[in-house]
Amino acid sequence: MKCTILSVGTELLFGSILNTNTVYLSQQMNEMGIDVMYHMTVGDNPLRLKDMIRHAYVDCDMIITTGGLGPTQDDLTKEMIAEAFGEEIITFPEQLEILQNHFKRYDRPMTENNLKQANFPKNATVFPNPNGTAPGFALEKSGKLIVSMPGPPKEMVPMFEQQVRPFLENRSDGALFYKTLRVFELGESMLETRLLDLINSQTDPTLATYAKDHESTLRIASKRKTRAEAEAAVSEMLAKVRERIGPFIYSEEDEDLSRIVLRKLLQDGLSLSVAESCTGGAFSKAVTDVPGVSAVFDRGIVTYSNQAKMQELGVRAETLAQYGAVSSQVAEEMADGLYRASRSDLCLSITGIAGPDGGSAEKPVGLIYIGLRHRGEVRSYRYQLRNSNRRYIRSNAVMHMFLVLYKTLFRED
Amino acid sequence: MKCTILSVGTELLFGSILNTNTVYLSQQMNEMGIDVMYHMTVGDNPLRLKDMIRHAYVDCDMIITTGGLGPTQDDLTKEMIAEAFGEEIITFPEQLEILQNHFKRYDRPMTENNLKQANFPKNATVFPNPNGTAPGFALEKSGKLIVSMPGPPKEMVPMFEQQVRPFLENRSDGALFYKTLRVFELGESMLETRLLDLINSQTDPTLATYAKDHESTLRIASKRKTRAEAEAAVSEMLAKVRERIGPFIYSEEDEDLSRIVLRKLLQDGLSLSVAESCTGGAFSKAVTDVPGVSAVFDRGIVTYSNQAKMQELGVRAETLAQYGAVSSQVAEEMADGLYRASRSDLCLSITGIAGPDGGSAEKPVGLIYIGLRHRGEVRSYRYQLRNSNRRYIRSNAVMHMFLVLYKTLFRED
Repeated sequence: MKCTILSVGTELLFGSILNTNTVYLSQQMNEMGIDVMYHMTVGDNPLRLKDMIRHAYVDCDMIITTGGLGPTQDDLTKEMIAEAFGEEIITFPEQLEILQNHFKRYDRPMTENNLKQANFPKNATVFPNPNGTAPGFALEKSGKLIVSMPGPPKEMVPMFEQQVRPFLENRSDGALFYKTLRVFELGESMLETRLLDLINSQTDPTLATYAKDHESTLRIASKRKTRAEAEAAVSEMLAKVRERIGPFIYSEEDEDLSRIVLRKLLQDGLSLSVAESCTGGAFSKAVTDVPGVSAVFDRGIVTYSNQAKMQELGVRAETLAQYGAVSSQVAEEMADGLYRASRSDLCLSITGIAGPDGGSAEKPVGLIYIGLRHRGEVRSYRYQLRNSNRRYIRSNAVMHMFLVLYKTLFRED
Repeated sequence: MKCTILSVGTELLFGSILNTNTVYLSQQMNEMGIDVMYHMTVGDNPLRLKDMIRHAYVDCDMIITTGGLGPTQDDLTKEMIAEAFGEEIITFPEQLEILQNHFKRYDRPMTENNLKQANFPKNATVFPNPNGTAPGFALEKSGKLIVSMPGPPKEMVPMFEQQVRPFLENRSDGALFYKTLRVFELGESMLETRLLDLINSQTDPTLATYAKDHESTLRIASKRKTRAEAEAAVSEMLAKVRERIGPFIYSEEDEDLSRIVLRKLLQDGLSLSVAESCTGGAFSKAVTDVPGVSAVFDRGIVTYSNQAKMQELGVRAETLAQYGAVSSQVAEEMADGLYRASRSDLCLSITGIAGPDGGSAEKPVGLIYIGLRHRGEVRSYRYQLRNSNRRYIRSNAVMHMFLVLYKTLFRED
């Protein structure tokens, strides 16, 4: 199967936003064994949109569109698809009801223009949108398939994962099976070097490495006649990969490090508190992004000022004066003070320099100290993170905090 | 002038990299008053590439390509452009010399395939590449212009800035000016309803609404002969827009609410602390994402458990028992307790239900209370946020916390 990914929206042509949908969908299509032939972007213009839909089918049998499904006048994707396919647009009563209930529930007036979000080409398969008001849909005619989804990634991505992918998987020829491994402390090029002969010698399963923000992933994929055959091929390759990079793999199920750590805490009935300086609440946020952590997470203290470090955590003025706020001593006193207040089983702390200012030759931007009080003992860990930018350093620091917890929970029993 | 931005490279179709070139070039074209009609991406395939070049001219008089100019076999952009334009490819002797010197300088052997980087369509204007080996070029024939640049952004961007932009500026008709307004508490469809007659009656300036996560933006754009004329037209329209939706506009410069609030605190020399329950550190994180806030931000307390609320903030057990953790009373006691510890000028607190569990008929998921102690007075604000998912509710809650601060700082003097 060959497809074109068509993005609709004048804001994309203005360069106001990055087209992350296209990257996401390209990855997903390729994973499913569907070849992506073209990316196209067109503005909210009916004639050009219709022309693009027609042209995209020149060497493809499928188009995926994002954007232009909303309530406003310039949202025209649905109408132009119907025209290009020679289909009538009708109101789907059940979709109208969902829409009306949505506005009722939030006690918001439903303006006239919203009604068109319940209209679809007559023979469309509708994909409900639990995260917004514009549903997606699929339409097929004369061997040409089109799948249309809303533009906001927070609506498009869940719709794709929960509805569109299963819909497409039922149509794909052959069975694809894959595993995505998460790897830390081993950059993408190092990872590739260790696996180069496997990568080069294999046509199926294929191995592909991807660099993510602070880690790498390795995807082992096989496409065979049956799922069982594909699974067996992936398993066999996985065993070889484990031999090469086993200690660096922290997940074979594409799971976030934070989820793995928090699940372990929950299983073992351990409580966690955190005292943050340079990460400024980013670790607490990452923990509480996960629902159901209140059984584990007691409290977080963001002590941005020295005063707050002393008052909230009992860090001593002398320690701050002698070693500076960014030091193993302060990290350890933060963890200690946090324990006195919270009595949590794991008391984690961090102090560091997120930049762009505040660095020195001795303590450069990117230097962090992580403290941990656990089983009556306080330790600290020093990392020098790559100084690319503040956002990167802060999120990388959070990753390292989870890494310290991971190693404490899984490797040091 | 109307243009298509055409990216060449199979790696883009795999979704391995984000297409930042297209965003950059779209912004640049729009600033120069050149309309971007399409984005297109095609792989390193000669036939499809040639077809795209032809199709892109349907309603454009210009194409900008990036990628496919390198030395390898699958770098074919130049060759396909020459074919599409019916031009002969010849070696440019001065470019060959530059190329040979480049390899000499870095003491690298020059393989045979590198030679083609000195070849161009016969009538091309060449743009030398000081940051790589593949020069760019422009070609014009029968009123159709094509500009071709290498793919790596660190080569493309300087080439554009130093050579291509001056080349194009000599040819551009008219100047574009626009303003992007940020609007809160008014959804995209409501915003459009209020401005519909303006949107419909105008061809220049144009008005376009976009939905963002928890707000809407409105873009007013004008293209006139001179920048001064375009600016005047936008100003005049802006005045009309202010009459309709003035109180909902918080920025006329496309600025984040958090930045506006934090700058105001800095200007007025006010300090801020926060006590978070349901947002779990997300507000502290958002504040400390901004560098240089340590002069303003004192501390953040994430009290996830009731125990932590009592110990860290002095919330009373009776209040928790009588009204529940999610109540205006608890929000106010949190703000009060935070003030006792920090003495900050603004002590902000939040308690709410981020879901997916924990809601009830009386207190549904998405209910939040924001407390604020300011000038000796404690207030609380109740909001029922749309229950789409935990992540959305939490980030929307953070937005509302900034909104409370914004109104306090700007509207209640």
